[in-house]
Amino acid sequence: MNDFDPANATQSSAVVENSTTGSEEGGNSKRQKILPKTLESKSFAIKDFEGNKEDQEDYIANTMATYKKNLTDRSEHQLGYPFNLEYDYKDLNQLMPFSINNIGDPFIGGDCGNHSRPFEVGVLDWFAEFMKIEKNEYWGYITSCGTEGNFHGILTGRKMFPNGILYASKESHYSIAKAIDMFSMKWVQVETQVSGEIDYHDFKTKLLANKEFPAIVVANIGMVFVVGTTMKGAVDDIDFIIQILKEGGISQDRFYIHCDGALSGILLPFMECEKKVISFKKPIGSASISGHNFIGCPITCGVLITRKDYINFHSRNIEYIASQDATIMGSRNGHAPIFLWHALNREGCKLIQKQVEECLKNARYLKGCLCKAGISAMLNESSIIVVFERPKDEELIRKWQLASQGNVSHVVVMPHVSVAMLNTFLDELISKRLTWYKDEIPPCLEVDIGKENCTCALHKC
Amino acid sequence: MNDFDPANATQSSAVVENSTTGSEEGGNSKRQKILPKTLESKSFAIKDFEGNKEDQEDYIANTMATYKKNLTDRSEHQLGYPFNLEYDYKDLNQLMPFSINNIGDPFIGGDCGNHSRPFEVGVLDWFAEFMKIEKNEYWGYITSCGTEGNFHGILTGRKMFPNGILYASKESHYSIAKAIDMFSMKWVQVETQVSGEIDYHDFKTKLLANKEFPAIVVANIGMVFVVGTTMKGAVDDIDFIIQILKEGGISQDRFYIHCDGALSGILLPFMECEKKVISFKKPIGSASISGHNFIGCPITCGVLITRKDYINFHSRNIEYIASQDATIMGSRNGHAPIFLWHALNREGCKLIQKQVEECLKNARYLKGCLCKAGISAMLNESSIIVVFERPKDEELIRKWQLASQGNVSHVVVMPHVSVAMLNTFLDELISKRLTWYKDEIPPCLEVDIGKENCTCALHKC
Repeated sequence: MNDFDPANATQSSAVVENSTTGSEEGGNSKRQKILPKTLESKSFAIKDFEGNKEDQEDYIANTMATYKKNLTDRSEHQLGYPFNLEYDYKDLNQLMPFSINNIGDPFIGGDCGNHSRPFEVGVLDWFAEFMKIEKNEYWGYITSCGTEGNFHGILTGRKMFPNGILYASKESHYSIAKAIDMFSMKWVQVETQVSGEIDYHDFKTKLLANKEFPAIVVANIGMVFVVGTTMKGAVDDIDFIIQILKEGGISQDRFYIHCDGALSGILLPFMECEKKVISFKKPIGSASISGHNFIGCPITCGVLITRKDYINFHSRNIEYIASQDATIMGSRNGHAPIFLWHALNREGCKLIQKQVEECLKNARYLKGCLCKAGISAMLNESSIIVVFERPKDEELIRKWQLASQGNVSHVVVMPHVSVAMLNTFLDELISKRLTWYKDEIPPCLEVDIGKENCTCALHKC
Repeated sequence: MNDFDPANATQSSAVVENSTTGSEEGGNSKRQKILPKTLESKSFAIKDFEGNKEDQEDYIANTMATYKKNLTDRSEHQLGYPFNLEYDYKDLNQLMPFSINNIGDPFIGGDCGNHSRPFEVGVLDWFAEFMKIEKNEYWGYITSCGTEGNFHGILTGRKMFPNGILYASKESHYSIAKAIDMFSMKWVQVETQVSGEIDYHDFKTKLLANKEFPAIVVANIGMVFVVGTTMKGAVDDIDFIIQILKEGGISQDRFYIHCDGALSGILLPFMECEKKVISFKKPIGSASISGHNFIGCPITCGVLITRKDYINFHSRNIEYIASQDATIMGSRNGHAPIFLWHALNREGCKLIQKQVEECLKNARYLKGCLCKAGISAMLNESSIIVVFERPKDEELIRKWQLASQGNVSHVVVMPHVSVAMLNTFLDELISKRLTWYKDEIPPCLEVDIGKENCTCALHKC
């Protein structure tokens, strides 16, 4: 099934050893070394056919055929990762032979004509309206992924408040930790509730303990995709965060809020959950939303929206940066904006609304079926992520690509996840589970998903 | 010709004004504000057709047709930017309907099957061999662009030497300035020679003045693409840089060298210029090469290669980062590695060799024709970039997409730039120039390209 998978290596294959490679300047001279067990993983090699065109063409064609077959299988069994695979971009095949590069600012033209800025600006305008900010008040760009948007937002926060402290919950996407490390910031990690939502009490306590410093806050808006971990799709309450900041004596000119809205940023406005919606009517600074998650796009991408005034902070070192470029990257994929533009023009709000309703319905259906079968499961409000007891069979996890961590796995009910697909999965899971727990009892998941969702012998409702 | 270009805005449209938006914590409360004159640029809007499918399809089809026409024209007149437009990826259209995401480490598999890691590892292995480092000694990944590779290399340097000073010439790519700003590093900017190559004497002087600090050095290997500026494609001499470091008393455990090899990194090994070639047999730490530049790829991408031991520095905060992910980004474009894999398998070293020879020949031809026509022009050794007197007609610059700055413009002689294309351009330039300098004399370009390349009244050879 997964015949090309590099050496079937997983995270657990890490070798942890002590090393003395660190230099004096590098800090610890003894430091933990985390390396994959082997770098000699399986790969499709680049071969030299010494002019034998036929062999060369055969090799390429066979590799493509094998890979396409595998990819088709993998796409048909994609339950655990938040890619919407239901899209049709045939119209855009005609553009694939062109190199398109949106390097620099989306709103500033240049001499290089191989760009797609008019598509990019069209998409950005749509997202600006979606997040309730006027055209002449926002700035943004299409990023290579949600992470880049998070970097941009957090960097803006640091530039506004160089001595600010970053507050983000411990269930934040790992791009937040990367940003803190890269940008040399101080992170006060906030506890979470069982749902995965930030613990507001802990946030308030930690904020008050550091009230002499400005606050840079990352709000997790249903964040979902962390390599090898299970997320619950919980949404931090932006309004409540703002209230706590104000009550804590951090006035609006001393805080910056970045919203990591990877998946749910686009869903919430369709869920009648105003207080958690990303809106620039609230005093937030920036928001990052993924393009390949709910909208769906073969190429990874994201959207960053911020307030126009803030790009000034990124152009500070204008004597070094010979450009008004306030983006993080250099060359930027010019095809991605066209995919998003096409999806939004074809689908628009009506289709997204329909898809969101369908996904919510199917997520509730999955949760219901799991409960009925006596399997511990949790589904947060305003979420399409069902977290449940981790299957004991690793093969089943791999087959259905269930993101799994510790005792739990999750399914992200995306638009391509049909009831039929869920039923096939459920049949397989339930029948196999009978054999796993023939002679032993299922684990208690109170700590992971709360006792109200646990069906272990103790909590069984 | 460029009918969709956003508001025909150029860099010069910036508004420089004083602002008081800076906060106390942000440093200067009075700060220069650099903003584009307008953000209301032309765009292709996302429209709501209220269910009228026919109008919707028409709008999409018409926009695509207009855009494709423009893109075709722009590609036929692409002289100034280093995209190789001569490629054929028809084989890969069959994969475009798939979402492919290589999130995380290329060498570590996971539960998510929609990836292209075997292609990525194949391409990385090729580049590792190309840069003379053993398979079991390197680590790397396919980046979203050359800039991301530069970020990775420089960040590795900072992690090894937190109190290190970064040395890079003032003609470095602007991603270096971005990295210094993001990573809060200290940059000692080194002067350049007229050729654009680093001034070794100045480097030595500045190094000796700071010899108590470790050195992080960025070597520019024919760097070329800076928004709105003209680059000369000069190559810093890695061997000489190493010699200066050693002579200056900076031993190998106190320096880190990153090679920014965006364009020329892949050309030099075919030019018999060993001392400037990126090779891990030399004590360098990392190298970044662009994928969409010389190899050619419709989607922007790059390759980062570093020493395997160094990824340890990126996994230091393992308690925060719930992954062994040592990449900069999160979700990573899984299509890009397949494009590069396809190009390298079809083309391999032989075709690159042929293309490099052809490009060098054509670059010399262009330089020769310009000189013959009395136009000041420069062509560095081991370079395919011809720098020459800036045309006085901005329309001509836009038509041929000549990157231009101050008194000079440049043409990057890529594989798609044929002699026929150059002749058309030359005819147009030479005939128009006769009218520009009918009553006035052409400018002196001694400062820009050296007196030996200047054909002004004073220096005319």
